[in-house]
Amino acid sequence: MELFYSTDIKKSVITLSGAEADHCVRVMRHREGDTVFVMDGKGGLYNCTIARIVLPKRGEAVVECSVVEKSQGVGVRNYHLVMAVCPTKNMDRYEWFAEKATELGVDSIVPIISDHSIRTSVKKERLEALVLAATKQSLKSCLPVVEDAVSVTDFLNRDFGEGVLKLMAHCEEGEKKTIRERLGDFASDNLRVVLMIGPEGDFSQKEIELALKKGFLPVTLGPSRLRVETAAVAGVSEIYFASI
Amino acid sequence: MELFYSTDIKKSVITLSGAEADHCVRVMRHREGDTVFVMDGKGGLYNCTIARIVLPKRGEAVVECSVVEKSQGVGVRNYHLVMAVCPTKNMDRYEWFAEKATELGVDSIVPIISDHSIRTSVKKERLEALVLAATKQSLKSCLPVVEDAVSVTDFLNRDFGEGVLKLMAHCEEGEKKTIRERLGDFASDNLRVVLMIGPEGDFSQKEIELALKKGFLPVTLGPSRLRVETAAVAGVSEIYFASI
Repeated sequence: MELFYSTDIKKSVITLSGAEADHCVRVMRHREGDTVFVMDGKGGLYNCTIARIVLPKRGEAVVECSVVEKSQGVGVRNYHLVMAVCPTKNMDRYEWFAEKATELGVDSIVPIISDHSIRTSVKKERLEALVLAATKQSLKSCLPVVEDAVSVTDFLNRDFGEGVLKLMAHCEEGEKKTIRERLGDFASDNLRVVLMIGPEGDFSQKEIELALKKGFLPVTLGPSRLRVETAAVAGVSEIYFASI
Repeated sequence: MELFYSTDIKKSVITLSGAEADHCVRVMRHREGDTVFVMDGKGGLYNCTIARIVLPKRGEAVVECSVVEKSQGVGVRNYHLVMAVCPTKNMDRYEWFAEKATELGVDSIVPIISDHSIRTSVKKERLEALVLAATKQSLKSCLPVVEDAVSVTDFLNRDFGEGVLKLMAHCEEGEKKTIRERLGDFASDNLRVVLMIGPEGDFSQKEIELALKKGFLPVTLGPSRLRVETAAVAGVSEIYFASI
């Protein structure tokens, strides 16, 4: 089973365009009448028949699909997770985190720029493409959002609303619990978590103080010295396993 | 702090050779009298002074270090973990697993070849080099072993001894517990775990049956469809977090 992605959904007609249409007809060589599955990135999964293909010799293909059946909530988790992670020096490592987080389950990836960050920008389009591929590959119907990079301070100053478990993994001394202990303390039917992972040199003192002031709870990732992307994937994994 | 690795340890003299010596004097440009840290891969960490450097224009450098102080058990875990994981089609993904497992904590990596494996060999030397780099980078003093590839059947027919928690993550229907539940049931002061992760198409029916016969307990990795290397890293991460 292979999934396509489209947000162009009008009643019982879904249109694939751009890379999705291209992949459908030029790579997978689907023809009119074929059955395909399309997800809307918001939990909807559509079983469709290809009704019409526009395939110019050059330029963009367009695929019109007739919806046969719709399922809602396919692969939907019982928690909402925002991963705010500082970019790694080597972007491959951040991309690996984004892919693994998508497979395990994440709703939003926010590249946060710390006072100690060496890299201060990310290629958002590339991350989005990777996250889309991982979503389709792992047969999920919800597409994680890749947000624009934002400074740690601006991120902390956001209004996260009530009932959100806000966690920061930092390396400063002090009383810290594990992620699972924090989840246990929080016990909620409608779990919403924000987890912040710092850069190689850790968050700055100022950032840690602001986080505590803003209600973020410190968490420990244990005694191992983990790379940024390893810490981030381990965090996603821990929240995923705590939910099953 | 940067770690070097040597097993050539005689009383208070440690000799670095090969790539380690090269890295020490040609890349890091250490000189006689410098302080360096050397680990023996078995839990020993040595604070040393460089006593003598042999640095030919061509050919291998040799670095003789005088031990100033030895610490035992640095970065040593309270459990022993064997990860028996089928190779991925793309070796990059297996190498990622090996690196991440090393950071989080693993004692032995066994490439197992399933009836359903597409790739039936791995570059052991490359994996060993990656595992050594990750061990040094994460400041661990124990070096995980990369074993030769072995068939799933031969692996299952090994004598693992008494008191080992043997787990297999497979996708067949049936009653399964999470890794954490299995760890909870097992409760041991001297935890020894073997975790088997199958190939893309899952273990074969025959392999699953043999595993059950050999006392392996099935575990679930939850509802997400995970790639092989993601499942493996999530498994290592789950055992790591359960130990802290």
